[in-house]
Amino acid sequence: MEKEEYVKEITSIQDDFAQWYTDIVLKAELADYTDTKGCIAIRPYGYAIWENIQKYMDEKFKEVGVTNFYMPSLIPESMLQKEKDHIEGFAPEVAWVTIGGGEELEEKLCIRPTSETMISTMYAKWIKSWRDLPIIGNQWCNVLRWEKETRPFLRSREFLWQEGHTVHENAKEAEDIALTMLDIYADVIENLLAIPVLKGKKTPKEKFAGAVDTYTVETLMIDGRALQSATSHYFGQNFTKPFNIKFQNREGKEEYAYQSSWGSTTRLIGAVIMAHGDNRGLKLPPKIAPIQAVIIPIAQHKQGVLEKVTEVYDNLKKNYRVKLDDRDNYSTGFKFNDWEMRGVPVRIEIGPKDLEKNQAVLVRRDTNEKEFVELSKLNERLNKLFDEIQNNMFNICLKRVKDKTTIACSIDEIIKNLNENQGYVKTMWCGDVECENKIKELTGAHSRCIPFEQEHLADTCAVCGKKANIMVTWGRQY
Amino acid sequence: MEKEEYVKEITSIQDDFAQWYTDIVLKAELADYTDTKGCIAIRPYGYAIWENIQKYMDEKFKEVGVTNFYMPSLIPESMLQKEKDHIEGFAPEVAWVTIGGGEELEEKLCIRPTSETMISTMYAKWIKSWRDLPIIGNQWCNVLRWEKETRPFLRSREFLWQEGHTVHENAKEAEDIALTMLDIYADVIENLLAIPVLKGKKTPKEKFAGAVDTYTVETLMIDGRALQSATSHYFGQNFTKPFNIKFQNREGKEEYAYQSSWGSTTRLIGAVIMAHGDNRGLKLPPKIAPIQAVIIPIAQHKQGVLEKVTEVYDNLKKNYRVKLDDRDNYSTGFKFNDWEMRGVPVRIEIGPKDLEKNQAVLVRRDTNEKEFVELSKLNERLNKLFDEIQNNMFNICLKRVKDKTTIACSIDEIIKNLNENQGYVKTMWCGDVECENKIKELTGAHSRCIPFEQEHLADTCAVCGKKANIMVTWGRQY
Repeated sequence: MEKEEYVKEITSIQDDFAQWYTDIVLKAELADYTDTKGCIAIRPYGYAIWENIQKYMDEKFKEVGVTNFYMPSLIPESMLQKEKDHIEGFAPEVAWVTIGGGEELEEKLCIRPTSETMISTMYAKWIKSWRDLPIIGNQWCNVLRWEKETRPFLRSREFLWQEGHTVHENAKEAEDIALTMLDIYADVIENLLAIPVLKGKKTPKEKFAGAVDTYTVETLMIDGRALQSATSHYFGQNFTKPFNIKFQNREGKEEYAYQSSWGSTTRLIGAVIMAHGDNRGLKLPPKIAPIQAVIIPIAQHKQGVLEKVTEVYDNLKKNYRVKLDDRDNYSTGFKFNDWEMRGVPVRIEIGPKDLEKNQAVLVRRDTNEKEFVELSKLNERLNKLFDEIQNNMFNICLKRVKDKTTIACSIDEIIKNLNENQGYVKTMWCGDVECENKIKELTGAHSRCIPFEQEHLADTCAVCGKKANIMVTWGRQY
Repeated sequence: MEKEEYVKEITSIQDDFAQWYTDIVLKAELADYTDTKGCIAIRPYGYAIWENIQKYMDEKFKEVGVTNFYMPSLIPESMLQKEKDHIEGFAPEVAWVTIGGGEELEEKLCIRPTSETMISTMYAKWIKSWRDLPIIGNQWCNVLRWEKETRPFLRSREFLWQEGHTVHENAKEAEDIALTMLDIYADVIENLLAIPVLKGKKTPKEKFAGAVDTYTVETLMIDGRALQSATSHYFGQNFTKPFNIKFQNREGKEEYAYQSSWGSTTRLIGAVIMAHGDNRGLKLPPKIAPIQAVIIPIAQHKQGVLEKVTEVYDNLKKNYRVKLDDRDNYSTGFKFNDWEMRGVPVRIEIGPKDLEKNQAVLVRRDTNEKEFVELSKLNERLNKLFDEIQNNMFNICLKRVKDKTTIACSIDEIIKNLNENQGYVKTMWCGDVECENKIKELTGAHSRCIPFEQEHLADTCAVCGKKANIMVTWGRQY
């Protein structure tokens, strides 16, 4: 009975995808709304996912020489204004501190929407010679962007992220590091979050305010909408000139340095929900699941059951993130559904019959498949099972990307494909922003990117019919 | 020559302690001033110390059941005002956001100076029954307090910290956890930072705004001034009542829950500098040193030297945080002084003569002692040496605490002891805030705490001569 009751609580994907998403966020206790409009509280279960992402990503960063630091969150107005495109991009969505310690401030301070300006100001102080380069810095912090419409994790006024900022002797090194970091993002998203990415370069219209080039890893959600999942920017000397980041080069001459920046956010938690979930709720890849397996005793009042599950729990917790749910005020059925809804990859059932056979029942969240495993082999089996689940989840997403990627050679085809299928639509593009604007206007889709893996689909732009050498992938987005 | 030059750069402790401190912060590249008044940039070398503290502390937290979350940094004015003592304590030092997204806000938002109000608001939503308790939550984040006078790490307008906030069924559990967390702080400070602590309870005058009781771990710096190094608070129902955190208890009745909170900050980095440093600069305990040992090749142009040091480096870096300084544009003398100034616990010298003998020279930063170690035994020796250094640094501080702790039985003695010695002065105290105020007025010293280890020094209060049962430790503070 409780099972029936429970499942009803989550709106079905088919009925209302947006509500399904919100239901999962709230009911799986990933996050909650707060009295600060547009800002969420990331609850322990959601935050633990972020910690797992952080841990993996930070290690990858450090392997390529990243060092972490922490810069002030408040940026003086005059500092924010030093780079023209940057201020134009960010000014409309910043929050301003105007009063501090009971007094009106002489110069107002914005809460960082991103820290290029603050960090470039500091780099200018610290860099003198080529021997001080490269600097490959990063910070894990909060940022604030005054979004009008917000959604938990996907678009929140305050969110958590890491922002990396580098300085180099020459353009090539700066471009290379931007791509190296993009590869790390792709690694994290594919191997940890089990979501395949589309890698490419943003069109000039979609690039970061102040960048020469923006690179992106795009992902595709269950409903066929795309999510920009992390970006990496090559700045050239766009910031080093206004911020006066000069260095003495190997020839003894002073010159402006070259920069990159790159960021990924708690939006990745939203990607996990929308790439993997189903009508039973959240579905977490084992590598980031805060609870990788939940042990549920069956008929736990029967002799020996609780002792045995506790023994199994104590044993497994040395190697995995496991939870023992021995609550006596919920039915077994309720517990099954509750942990399924919370996306725990594996359920381990142990009851009196299993005790006789010295076995446990394993149930996979991804396929609902059941198997019986000897208790002595549980540890080993779980290790393999987690890999199988992780891979299966990735492959399901990969199949979706393939199914939902289409080619279009005219504006009508673009419209048709997007309306039927959402997904990625690949076309040739002449390079004109007007054609890009037209697609946006007629379909609501943005260019996702100019994929690194280019194909020659046709000779002409799908919109204007002019000669075209660039393949672009388009899609409606979150 | 360079050695001489270099050492001059750091002001001597005897000449000007405050300047010595600032010199180390800046020259060891722990932090730097920024264009945002009162806010520092924590540079990679300083931030790496914080990461080492975080890692250790977070593990200890999780062992006692702490889960991390993240709450909005902006708190609506009406929310901040719900607890009377709290708002009185914090209102003067908050920063207010009044403009967001280009518009004047209807209600201004403060940047969290601490998050009791936000977190209690969320807890009220989440807690229904005793089964939801305890909640032992924590966040690692930035906070802002609009201090008038600031000093890097010790008192910065923005700083990093962790703030833990718990909810319990009864008073005892809440008090117990406050003490458990204090023990963790003591563990971190003594075992990781190698600084002995004085544990106790704050007097009512010195407690946290809104707390029933505040517990503290106090440390003593080289100059004899005290530093409040971490605090833990028992709140009783002071916040659960205004924030309406009620739960159905085991008897089925609704009642207000009990709370604690506890915090430690990047101030701990300041403690490390001021507890251990000397006239050559920073001195870092091996357990938190970003670089535990630096390898410096001697006559690195000589055949075989660079090959050998690289081999040693590759070998050691598997187990320790080591750095190889093979820069060719600095003299060996400069390097010695540079790494000493940066507080690296062990210097490893390898030159042509050492190659012949298959040995390395180890030099301890704490004692300047030199020893010769066979290369094959280097790994093992370092492990032990780090322990020896860590322990020696702790013992030096412990001796200082003993030397600088005095007993006073009259106000004249208090003044005399503090003026001669700074340090901790222990006295009996009647419990009146007037006596506490008088000491403050006459000496500038605050009560550090009512130590857990009480002694009966006399029958009467050192200030007023009335009957007294409480021993208090006093000291001038940072």
